[in-house]
Amino acid sequence: MASYNTLTPELIEQLKAAAPGHILTGEDINEDYARDEMPIYGKHMPDAVLMASSTEEIAACMKICNENLIPVTPRGAGTGLVGGCVPILGGLLIDTTKMKEIIGYDLDNFTVTIQPGVLLQELADDCAKQGYLYPPDPGEKLATVGGNVSTNAGGMRAVKYGSTRDYVLAMKVVLPTGEITEMGASVSKTSSGYSLLNLMIGSEGTLGIITELTLKIIPAPKKVISLIIPFEDLETAISTVPVIKKAGLGPQALEFMEREIVLSSERYIGRSVFPQEIEGQEIGAYLLVTFDGEDEDQLMELVEKACELVLDQGAMDVLVADTPARIRDAWAARSSFLEAIEAETKLLDECDVVVPVNKIASFLTFAKQCGEECGLVIKSFGHAGDGNLHIYQCSNDLEEAEFKKRVDNYFSKLYEEAVACGGLVSGEHGIGRGKVKYLIDSVGETNMALMEGIKKVFDPNMILNPGKVCYTM
Amino acid sequence: MASYNTLTPELIEQLKAAAPGHILTGEDINEDYARDEMPIYGKHMPDAVLMASSTEEIAACMKICNENLIPVTPRGAGTGLVGGCVPILGGLLIDTTKMKEIIGYDLDNFTVTIQPGVLLQELADDCAKQGYLYPPDPGEKLATVGGNVSTNAGGMRAVKYGSTRDYVLAMKVVLPTGEITEMGASVSKTSSGYSLLNLMIGSEGTLGIITELTLKIIPAPKKVISLIIPFEDLETAISTVPVIKKAGLGPQALEFMEREIVLSSERYIGRSVFPQEIEGQEIGAYLLVTFDGEDEDQLMELVEKACELVLDQGAMDVLVADTPARIRDAWAARSSFLEAIEAETKLLDECDVVVPVNKIASFLTFAKQCGEECGLVIKSFGHAGDGNLHIYQCSNDLEEAEFKKRVDNYFSKLYEEAVACGGLVSGEHGIGRGKVKYLIDSVGETNMALMEGIKKVFDPNMILNPGKVCYTM
Repeated sequence: MASYNTLTPELIEQLKAAAPGHILTGEDINEDYARDEMPIYGKHMPDAVLMASSTEEIAACMKICNENLIPVTPRGAGTGLVGGCVPILGGLLIDTTKMKEIIGYDLDNFTVTIQPGVLLQELADDCAKQGYLYPPDPGEKLATVGGNVSTNAGGMRAVKYGSTRDYVLAMKVVLPTGEITEMGASVSKTSSGYSLLNLMIGSEGTLGIITELTLKIIPAPKKVISLIIPFEDLETAISTVPVIKKAGLGPQALEFMEREIVLSSERYIGRSVFPQEIEGQEIGAYLLVTFDGEDEDQLMELVEKACELVLDQGAMDVLVADTPARIRDAWAARSSFLEAIEAETKLLDECDVVVPVNKIASFLTFAKQCGEECGLVIKSFGHAGDGNLHIYQCSNDLEEAEFKKRVDNYFSKLYEEAVACGGLVSGEHGIGRGKVKYLIDSVGETNMALMEGIKKVFDPNMILNPGKVCYTM
Repeated sequence: MASYNTLTPELIEQLKAAAPGHILTGEDINEDYARDEMPIYGKHMPDAVLMASSTEEIAACMKICNENLIPVTPRGAGTGLVGGCVPILGGLLIDTTKMKEIIGYDLDNFTVTIQPGVLLQELADDCAKQGYLYPPDPGEKLATVGGNVSTNAGGMRAVKYGSTRDYVLAMKVVLPTGEITEMGASVSKTSSGYSLLNLMIGSEGTLGIITELTLKIIPAPKKVISLIIPFEDLETAISTVPVIKKAGLGPQALEFMEREIVLSSERYIGRSVFPQEIEGQEIGAYLLVTFDGEDEDQLMELVEKACELVLDQGAMDVLVADTPARIRDAWAARSSFLEAIEAETKLLDECDVVVPVNKIASFLTFAKQCGEECGLVIKSFGHAGDGNLHIYQCSNDLEEAEFKKRVDNYFSKLYEEAVACGGLVSGEHGIGRGKVKYLIDSVGETNMALMEGIKKVFDPNMILNPGKVCYTM
């Protein structure tokens, strides 16, 4: 068990000297710093905040904290869902949102170099201006890219393009000791020692603070088309997914959504895009599929093949969105699922499990039944193309203590089932504070011991982001 | 500095009891076990060999060796080029080539599960029979897939499909302590703790022995076409590469080769496929490009665009290989480059550096000039699409000691230049025994200390594959 000191006025003076004008204390600290988007995993205010402006500044402050055993918690935009950026022991919080420069493109090598505080939406827009695409597309566009890398965020386009991990070529890192180092290179393959780069990706700010990123980008596909495909029930919808994938059609995104969550989201955004019935028959579930390609004819051929295929599999219809405005409309409801759920419940928790694609339907059936048994309202949607499910538990009128008790019982059963069918605890949100005990159950003692050992190699004094991922306390 | 014991007759009896009938000693040990394909990095016989048949057998033997401080070296087919599988301290060598079962396919989830001793060619053929493609395509088809994973082997198709790393979903591992563990899952995205899976990939048998692999496969592209594109000189050839990539044509493979190495390879295989001049003008370099796609029309459109593009960039002609036989012919010379070089020299060493794609031409110019200055004959070829170069140093008539001295001088300069232009020591062959000191120079002390720390977490007694990757002795 690591032990820590408190930030004394003397240490705060040292931090202020190391980062002049960038240290906040007392009432200058915004209350938002106490939490992320899932406050059920705990709130705690930091004792001081560094509004970081450079690698060197972060390194200097980290060194002071390391030498004095002060907990340090890194934070991007705070859009996480597992309490990963909550400074549960106080100490120094390092906010990277002011480090938001897009440093430059190298279009011969298809890379862009940025500071970690650039928002996903800003990066996407800027790449588009150059005619390029940064493929990772997590739902939360106001997350920082540094945060995306720290959780290996996946998103809608993972089914074709992979996760954030697949686009990180190099990074600059401040280690918990205050040392500055670089990992990776602007090259697309390497076999040069252990992949420290891949260890940093998805480590949720527990091994070091990312202060610069070189990312892979690709020429933007010239044409994009989305299809809304209604089905009578979820099972038929889900069973269509491997058929689409096997046909080699290469969808860019492949989402499933159930009737109830679509209705709820359309209520929230105040307009309706998805049909609710076809010829008097009620729609039970939808697939939302996007294809991209180099020219319209080629893409229309793909779409025709896809239509034939899904109608054969029992789709009730296919609605084609082939202009930017229609595509935006089709995705608008999907983009507001989380907000829509939040708007209709007092307390919320979430499971972001990932299972093999052909286990989605049976897993969701289990998740619903189990929800009923545990006395919880369950709402779900997810990435049908890659098996990553977002299963929300809503409290409705339950008191917090009772809700937490029921969720804990529910989670234990759900994660056990996920692991039994070959899945993992988190597909893209991470472990943070909220899922530590389920991670231990799922990966086992041997792997946890390896993770704890690695943590100590990077962070001998255990000061960085205490209590997260593999760090029980 | 770790210390080791020798394998006593008593310990050998213990090993024989743990793996009945599978332990070889004395004259039963084939001399090939002393070396890999680059014997210049040292030869050393093991004291005993385990012809492994199961995970449990490996675990039992590993446990005995760990408790008794006996060095253990894992080995696949021994096709490595950096001395990675040479048991430089003797001890037990674990041969995985008899663990060669293709355990099964899960075609709904696009995965195949295999034992580590399956050869790349066997896996490729078997996947093809199912209508699927295992995309990684390193030149050496007789390597084991376990070996490929251990070096994160890249190969020809990395430019479109990525390296071996991108296709490893899960593995079973025997740790140096003899514990058996599993990493990853049959899912395509995850954010569930530190990526131990990615740490194992490319760790060259120093962190654990892989005993089972679940790999991602994709529906096989229906049609493949290769183009031989001659240029007057290498610079024009290389400068065409980013233009092809930016056009979004998505080549599956994109290799460059110089006149001399093509001639040398065609002498070796005894037939000529590549033209040597066009209308009286001597050809200086070639690009060999492969495209794949879902149908012939679509692919021919791609090829037409590519032809227009490369002729605009100064290509002298384009030769199209559009039948399996012609494609095989086009790639036959490429496949024999290493053997052709070996046939014409007494001693050989190799640098497998990777640099940003737009630095290839200037780096090769440097490599040749530097070769002249160091008194070495240099032959090179490589993966133009991903910047991975294979630069061979040939001894011709030099004595070994003198050759080694010159190569060491040459390597120091070459790797320094590679790092200066944003590259790394190895693109796909790994560090093994041969490149340890250049890795230290390139990644720096901080990163080496992290790697050494990780090594000790996995292997507290430092028994597994001593002297490799980050382990100086």
